[in-house]
Amino acid sequence: MGTTSELQSLDKLVSNSLSGQDLQEFNRIHYGRISNHELEIKKNNILFGNENHFEIAAYKFPANKEETRKPRIVKVGVIQNSIAIPTDQPVTKQRCAIFEKIRKIIETAADEGVNILCLQEAWSMPFAFCTREKQPWCEFAESALEGPSTIFLKEFAVKYGMVIISPILERDEVHGDTIWNTAVVINEMGNTGHPVFETSFGKVAVNICYGRHHPLNWLMFGINGAEIVFNPSATVAGLSEHLWAVEARNAAIANSYFTCAINRVGTEKFPNEFTSGDGKPAHKEFGHFYGSSYVTAPDGSRTPGLSRVMDGLLIAELDLNLCRQIKDKWGFGMTQRLDLYVSSLSKAVNHDYEPQVVPRD
Amino acid sequence: MGTTSELQSLDKLVSNSLSGQDLQEFNRIHYGRISNHELEIKKNNILFGNENHFEIAAYKFPANKEETRKPRIVKVGVIQNSIAIPTDQPVTKQRCAIFEKIRKIIETAADEGVNILCLQEAWSMPFAFCTREKQPWCEFAESALEGPSTIFLKEFAVKYGMVIISPILERDEVHGDTIWNTAVVINEMGNTGHPVFETSFGKVAVNICYGRHHPLNWLMFGINGAEIVFNPSATVAGLSEHLWAVEARNAAIANSYFTCAINRVGTEKFPNEFTSGDGKPAHKEFGHFYGSSYVTAPDGSRTPGLSRVMDGLLIAELDLNLCRQIKDKWGFGMTQRLDLYVSSLSKAVNHDYEPQVVPRD
Repeated sequence: MGTTSELQSLDKLVSNSLSGQDLQEFNRIHYGRISNHELEIKKNNILFGNENHFEIAAYKFPANKEETRKPRIVKVGVIQNSIAIPTDQPVTKQRCAIFEKIRKIIETAADEGVNILCLQEAWSMPFAFCTREKQPWCEFAESALEGPSTIFLKEFAVKYGMVIISPILERDEVHGDTIWNTAVVINEMGNTGHPVFETSFGKVAVNICYGRHHPLNWLMFGINGAEIVFNPSATVAGLSEHLWAVEARNAAIANSYFTCAINRVGTEKFPNEFTSGDGKPAHKEFGHFYGSSYVTAPDGSRTPGLSRVMDGLLIAELDLNLCRQIKDKWGFGMTQRLDLYVSSLSKAVNHDYEPQVVPRD
Repeated sequence: MGTTSELQSLDKLVSNSLSGQDLQEFNRIHYGRISNHELEIKKNNILFGNENHFEIAAYKFPANKEETRKPRIVKVGVIQNSIAIPTDQPVTKQRCAIFEKIRKIIETAADEGVNILCLQEAWSMPFAFCTREKQPWCEFAESALEGPSTIFLKEFAVKYGMVIISPILERDEVHGDTIWNTAVVINEMGNTGHPVFETSFGKVAVNICYGRHHPLNWLMFGINGAEIVFNPSATVAGLSEHLWAVEARNAAIANSYFTCAINRVGTEKFPNEFTSGDGKPAHKEFGHFYGSSYVTAPDGSRTPGLSRVMDGLLIAELDLNLCRQIKDKWGFGMTQRLDLYVSSLSKAVNHDYEPQVVPRD
């Protein structure tokens, strides 16, 4: 489903064109560290990835040793994937085909010791929201508790002792068959607000797609104690590619936690033409989902991104102690003066708010 | 005062190593646009810059034409500079030497038609805060209303009809000789809160240095109607260079305004050794101030950065209509739900706040 004319990876393009001192300076300034701290991947998994056309990349974010706390090492994995068969095939067949490719990537993640795994937004279906058509796409919606995706993933969660975050289109039968853009934390579930999930491997939260544009949204997850915030997304080159490296990374910096930005891959063709509210003629493709999933640490350093065109598994070994170490070092929580902003914002939302403007003489 | 072993510019390093389609893709993904829309600079000014060792760069951010509003074109200029003579020289002599090099750059900016000009943090002195010594550095502090920097800049502001933003160390004699890290908007002045200054060329605000780390700080300037927010800074490679391209750019994206990030240049050597609270031995240099000043538009596109080692003048011609066009397109103001956060944050600041945590089973 990928288009071969697409650039494979901006990160690789730049890295491959530099060497020696220049490459070191690029790494230091762009990624925030001279070495990417690559983790070794098992040979059989590299082979398996090549055979099955998915990329595997693995990096490490160490923290300093402390006297009173042990290292809190956790391995997170994020998966980016294209759809598996054309969108005019039966819904169940499309989902099963995605399950089959995801199964292989999850087995690989498990074999590499991943503790917390997060899939992309609406991972088990094409990103059909762009068509604004309801049928047949709403038939992909499923119960968060006992739908096919949850049943499929539960098996792995139990078998490998993994926490799996599954962003799906939910059909909420308890609340009048409502459709939600949901993330299921297996085996736990969240709804409104900014819930943080306590897992065996640390406190995690999920900020779905568009939510990455709002700094206050990221802030509340931090206030509620998140140590890793996943941002499962589905976004295309023309909309957002130059923002992709900025927003989730800024959130990690501003809130002293890890962020994992996950984007779908490939170009998805739909049976019927549709418009995108941009004055352009009707089309059958929304654009190229550019993948490029990456992980940022609380100190602002980041991994290279996964491919722009291939399915991929990105693994990052984190020491969660780094969160508090950076809070202590940078002191943003101490200096952000939330109480002041409660007062400023409560004034700002009033209908008769007067902006603080110093007029011209 | 620069060190020759420093990399000149990451942007240039990468751009020079790419060409053709690869360079276009880099520009599209990294800067957010394939062409940097370079503005022509007058030949005499290029020559003058070469002779006097400062870089000049100029770019344009156009907006779409509208039916009911005329374009609102404004040219902003930002200046990054190193100090001019060693820090053990008399205070007045040091300041005068900086004035002399700045005079040349301002004359150039005026000749290029700049409307709003912003200097770097504490531009008229070495960045001596790092030494934690009070003498003689506090002698650089000056009256915001009638100190030497204000008098010096007022002349240009009047002569060229320019708004000049002058970040200085202020000595506030009216309030008990207090020292402030201030930005003077000539001929206007602000103090606490998040004031936005209405000028003939648009609404501007100033977020000084460390304030760039706080998304809520940027947010309030947006709420108060800012169209351009300047971030005059002084920060060194080891502290923040990998954050530099992220934070002010994210603020422009999140708040649909232009941001101008300005950093000082060079390595400043002080007479007495000092420590930096990082366990390292005492030293006489704080680190390398890496310049790299840049401008970001509300659509997230940005200019290349100025040099990491040279004084420089960066000019950007903006159409302020782009702010509202992007607000209409992206709708972040509409979707950010400030009222919800007033409620969430007012709970979060309570001493008995209970974070929204979903416990393990």
